[in-house]
Amino acid sequence: MSAKPLDTIMSPSSIAITGASNNFVKMGTIQMLNLVNCGFPGDIMPVHPTEKTVLGKKAYPSIKDLPYAPDLAIFVVPTRLVPEMLEDIGKLGTKHAVIITAGFRETGGKGRDLEKRIIDIARTYGIRFLGPNCLGIVNTHLPLNITVAPILVHGGSFSLASQSGTYIAQSVKFLQKNGIGFAKAISVGNEADISLADCLEYLGDDDRTKAIGLYIEGIRDGARFLEVARRVSVKKPIVAQYVGGTEAGARSGSSHTGAMAGPDFIYDGLFAQAGIIRVDTIEEVYRIGWALATQPPLKGTRIAVLTNSGGPGTAIASTCNAANLEIPEFSPGIQESISELIPGHASPRNPVDLTFHMDMDTLAEKIPEILFQASEIDGIIIHGIMDTGFLELMYPVAKDYIPMSKEEFLKASQVRIDKLVRMPHTYGKPLLISSFFGKEDHAIDEFHGSRVPTFDSPEKAAKAMAAFYKHLLIRKRNSSGKAERPEMTVPAEAREILDGRKASAIDEYMAKRVLRAYGIPTAQEHLARSPEEAIESARRIGFPVAVKACSPSISHKTEQNLVFLNVNDEDGVRQACDSILSAAPDAGILVAEMLRGKREFMAGISTYAGFPPCVMFGLGGIFAEALKDFTIRLAPLSRDDALEMIGSIGAKALIGPYRSMGEVDRNALASVLMRLGDLALDFPGIKEIDLNPVIIEDGKPKVADALMIIR
Amino acid sequence: MSAKPLDTIMSPSSIAITGASNNFVKMGTIQMLNLVNCGFPGDIMPVHPTEKTVLGKKAYPSIKDLPYAPDLAIFVVPTRLVPEMLEDIGKLGTKHAVIITAGFRETGGKGRDLEKRIIDIARTYGIRFLGPNCLGIVNTHLPLNITVAPILVHGGSFSLASQSGTYIAQSVKFLQKNGIGFAKAISVGNEADISLADCLEYLGDDDRTKAIGLYIEGIRDGARFLEVARRVSVKKPIVAQYVGGTEAGARSGSSHTGAMAGPDFIYDGLFAQAGIIRVDTIEEVYRIGWALATQPPLKGTRIAVLTNSGGPGTAIASTCNAANLEIPEFSPGIQESISELIPGHASPRNPVDLTFHMDMDTLAEKIPEILFQASEIDGIIIHGIMDTGFLELMYPVAKDYIPMSKEEFLKASQVRIDKLVRMPHTYGKPLLISSFFGKEDHAIDEFHGSRVPTFDSPEKAAKAMAAFYKHLLIRKRNSSGKAERPEMTVPAEAREILDGRKASAIDEYMAKRVLRAYGIPTAQEHLARSPEEAIESARRIGFPVAVKACSPSISHKTEQNLVFLNVNDEDGVRQACDSILSAAPDAGILVAEMLRGKREFMAGISTYAGFPPCVMFGLGGIFAEALKDFTIRLAPLSRDDALEMIGSIGAKALIGPYRSMGEVDRNALASVLMRLGDLALDFPGIKEIDLNPVIIEDGKPKVADALMIIR
Repeated sequence: MSAKPLDTIMSPSSIAITGASNNFVKMGTIQMLNLVNCGFPGDIMPVHPTEKTVLGKKAYPSIKDLPYAPDLAIFVVPTRLVPEMLEDIGKLGTKHAVIITAGFRETGGKGRDLEKRIIDIARTYGIRFLGPNCLGIVNTHLPLNITVAPILVHGGSFSLASQSGTYIAQSVKFLQKNGIGFAKAISVGNEADISLADCLEYLGDDDRTKAIGLYIEGIRDGARFLEVARRVSVKKPIVAQYVGGTEAGARSGSSHTGAMAGPDFIYDGLFAQAGIIRVDTIEEVYRIGWALATQPPLKGTRIAVLTNSGGPGTAIASTCNAANLEIPEFSPGIQESISELIPGHASPRNPVDLTFHMDMDTLAEKIPEILFQASEIDGIIIHGIMDTGFLELMYPVAKDYIPMSKEEFLKASQVRIDKLVRMPHTYGKPLLISSFFGKEDHAIDEFHGSRVPTFDSPEKAAKAMAAFYKHLLIRKRNSSGKAERPEMTVPAEAREILDGRKASAIDEYMAKRVLRAYGIPTAQEHLARSPEEAIESARRIGFPVAVKACSPSISHKTEQNLVFLNVNDEDGVRQACDSILSAAPDAGILVAEMLRGKREFMAGISTYAGFPPCVMFGLGGIFAEALKDFTIRLAPLSRDDALEMIGSIGAKALIGPYRSMGEVDRNALASVLMRLGDLALDFPGIKEIDLNPVIIEDGKPKVADALMIIR
Repeated sequence: MSAKPLDTIMSPSSIAITGASNNFVKMGTIQMLNLVNCGFPGDIMPVHPTEKTVLGKKAYPSIKDLPYAPDLAIFVVPTRLVPEMLEDIGKLGTKHAVIITAGFRETGGKGRDLEKRIIDIARTYGIRFLGPNCLGIVNTHLPLNITVAPILVHGGSFSLASQSGTYIAQSVKFLQKNGIGFAKAISVGNEADISLADCLEYLGDDDRTKAIGLYIEGIRDGARFLEVARRVSVKKPIVAQYVGGTEAGARSGSSHTGAMAGPDFIYDGLFAQAGIIRVDTIEEVYRIGWALATQPPLKGTRIAVLTNSGGPGTAIASTCNAANLEIPEFSPGIQESISELIPGHASPRNPVDLTFHMDMDTLAEKIPEILFQASEIDGIIIHGIMDTGFLELMYPVAKDYIPMSKEEFLKASQVRIDKLVRMPHTYGKPLLISSFFGKEDHAIDEFHGSRVPTFDSPEKAAKAMAAFYKHLLIRKRNSSGKAERPEMTVPAEAREILDGRKASAIDEYMAKRVLRAYGIPTAQEHLARSPEEAIESARRIGFPVAVKACSPSISHKTEQNLVFLNVNDEDGVRQACDSILSAAPDAGILVAEMLRGKREFMAGISTYAGFPPCVMFGLGGIFAEALKDFTIRLAPLSRDDALEMIGSIGAKALIGPYRSMGEVDRNALASVLMRLGDLALDFPGIKEIDLNPVIIEDGKPKVADALMIIR
């Protein structure tokens, strides 16, 4: 693989920094302080117009005065100075930059122009850059830290790429307290050059990174993001939060990084297709990302829950179960082994509830050993291991009855977890810990040191285990790579109808001809120009038929009484034609077979800036809008994509067999969705396609009505 | 109001405790230690067979030897000793007990018998008790603490009743770290006598309690719980978690407290009807409960979001928006006032994003003052106030450039929040704080001291604000009290049909007669005994008609081809009759009008142990099972209950107006649901009623098909 710009940006051997001084309240100064103090092993060269030294390092009055071209230049200067200084580093020969300065596209108007200018300058000099309007980068294994927070070198295995710098810098204490350590962290800012997808690709290839977190306000290039993510996600878990899917979220994101958001359902579909585990909070990005980065993958669905307390056990069991994980009752042999270790009234079934119990070895070693060894169990969650956290609270109350100093007492009470923390790797099963205590508890602190994830409430551990299960499904996917468009030329008939056509010229009859040219089955139909022709058509098709007005200028046909269904005889056809022609004298008359089938779905295409055409699938019929049960994927679709779509609507039971109805031909339905995607890719002028209903007749999908809108 | 047993249990003036000794590893000892050390102002009398004193208090060899009958007796003795000792305190005259000892119903078999025995003893002596199998009680305002954890007297305003003792005792550190303080906490255990509903009623009347949390594995008496909760919830917010709705959750709960769980949807309906805010995690019970207990109620939907960072601002805005809260752009006047205080590239619109900014006064006082004063804003969320938490991290890095000791530096950097914490009460608007820092940060610690809730990630603050909004809706309800069954005698015709009837004797015709007797409209229909009668009926009803077999022994009529719809003429009726009679010679023939209407709903009754009849409402038709879009409420229903049900299904848009269909007569539909509930209450033998479809014809609901099952 050829070297990528982020390889250098994340691991430079020399850095020039502009905007740092000896004034501690300046952002640039704080960032340089962190750079200097993190232990970065290369040259650091501050550029400052007047200072001789900055934070103890020799300063250079201008970029031109630097002794050589550094690997990386960092800008924390006022907005107006950026273009010229960028040009200067270009002339010097530096090819990589991080532009922290804000005030560009996210402010609209002039800022947008200024951003274009720096993009042009970068192109001219071959500079690749992160930002502007970002908060810097962290590489704990180099080490390198140019953020505003003194992120300690933990040498973790979880990496984050974020459209918010805060989630890299302001959360440092939160992460420390929860034992979470970054491998790499990248604040992407406005993504004027290097994008979130580039960061994802870089982290996907990074050996130190075992799981990836993403914070997303809007993706600029959906096709590339999808392509990169589906390649990475089968190797490494990706956890992502998307916050642009509401009116307020979109508006806020836009003034934050100028992000272009999209409806929430697009990201739901994109994440599903890409194999990304979607979460709702930044806390979940961190905690679940860290768990996935540190524990072995889950290989099945059977989870053991071990606690010293019924409430957390029940909550964990219930939350796991609701996420399709099993909490199986243990086999008699396992139950017997456990029973020997626990009080008589305690349950050995799963969850194992030791009840109030001060013998922590049972909870932290003896029973876990049994569970890790058991072939009937795939993952383990333990709640309630605690020592000094609880006993420190008890000491003042009980000290008169304890013949030891506090320190001795706490030391004597420490639980040994050294065996437990090795078990996940020995047995290849994930272990997650739940506890109401944090780092103040010696056991929890030891878990952090041993990189076993801890969760401060039971349901969080369960939700993390659910993410392991999601990644199991993602790893198991047949097609890991990009969906390939099958080799097939664009049908001539479709070209004939669509090439150069305007929105106002596509009627239902033409739309269906295009569909059939793509192999998408529709109801059999004829376009008649007179009542006589219509009757002739009906005779050929066979009664009952549907008779509809056909004109690109008529929409909402049903509401206008221009659709007649179940027409049983020639008289009926004539009456229908008369009604249609008196209301719409110029309309054609579409005579179509009446499809027999109770199950109605919808399929379609919708388009959004920044994304390839979205293929939609859901419940159809006249109630589709009210039911809102649909899902999307981005074209082109692999067969697996299409099959996953079909299986992911709420009313998927209708795919059958359902009551007296047979199973829907999933492959035929998948083909409809795949070919719809191909059609939309072939003709970028298509703005929208709405096939509703797609009726299931004898198990096969057939399009009964079609609407196609051209840009 | 007459004194309730919990009044004495939670505020006794004297306590006898059994099971405590001078051996520190015994649970009873730990509990007595906490009782002694909490500062309980009354007499504490340990009962111990051999010790002269226990934990410094004079011990009595047996209950009989106590100098007088204490207000409250606490049992932490082995299971087998409980009955006799309970009898002893009864003889002594003590009327209240907390039985912490486990090993009763939750263990099945003998334990179940033993539990019955202690109930009998308690009845004999007029003793009211909590437990068995509980973990005790806390009343921080007395103070009183008989749990295993040294819960500090915080004197909070949030109270918890829990089916898990852990959530009272093991979470003590978690609560301390998050500034959350109990007023009262009650571990209910097996609820052999005093129930969760009793606790809820007590806390509802308790002046110190401003909001109530519940942890629930299963409710024993749904009717009473509902009656109490709907009375309390209009005064005080109730936040509840239910974990029994999955197979694993139900199984685990059963071996924990012998709880009888029920499907999740019952609790969804029960909570909605009762005005309880449902949450998914115990963390939310604590945090959201604490927020509701400490902040003024929300009076509208317009939330201001103020941050020093775009990511959290966007996440808060998006999470609020998704929960139906508005993040309105501020009016020009407010934007102008804010603009004067923030950097040029920062946004004053809402969210306000100060961007990286070290002037905390702007964030913690100046802009909040503007927002609290603004009549266009109902609630405020602030993210990013921090001082020593961040600066303590920075000090080691920056100390060479700071002319102060660490202590001086941290002190000098402290943000003043004294004005901010008073604003919510001055202006009557809730304030929620989000920060990645905790108690280690001086500002956050001050917030805790001032009882302003803090959340360690942005979405949590937003979700808490959403709970304030839910409570706004609950407070606004028309009917606060119990739904009253309207004064109406049981219809004679219903009695005639149902009294003493067995399951096998109710056919569709009878079921519909019962419905009509209750004023529930059905399709017009006749029961015919011969094809000739059927034709005559069809003529009277008018074509087209439906012709169906009618017999209590036939189910799944449609699948067996015993239903003929849209029969257009006499010949058709005859053919239908022939088909039916050849397949089912003994069946009656039901001839019914064909209802004209596209919208099909379902309504019904289902019954579950421990609950009044559940009235169901949802999408109907043959796809109802696949769509699973329904909701329940417990009978009897008020009109508001029924209207809320109708408005709470997913596809509520179908209630209309929808496309060319008019609005459904909500009152008529509500009446169907209310009368169904009355019917089920009048005839407890009814196990199930299934009205599907209920067709909307000209806006009015009419039952097209009905199934009634008797126990």
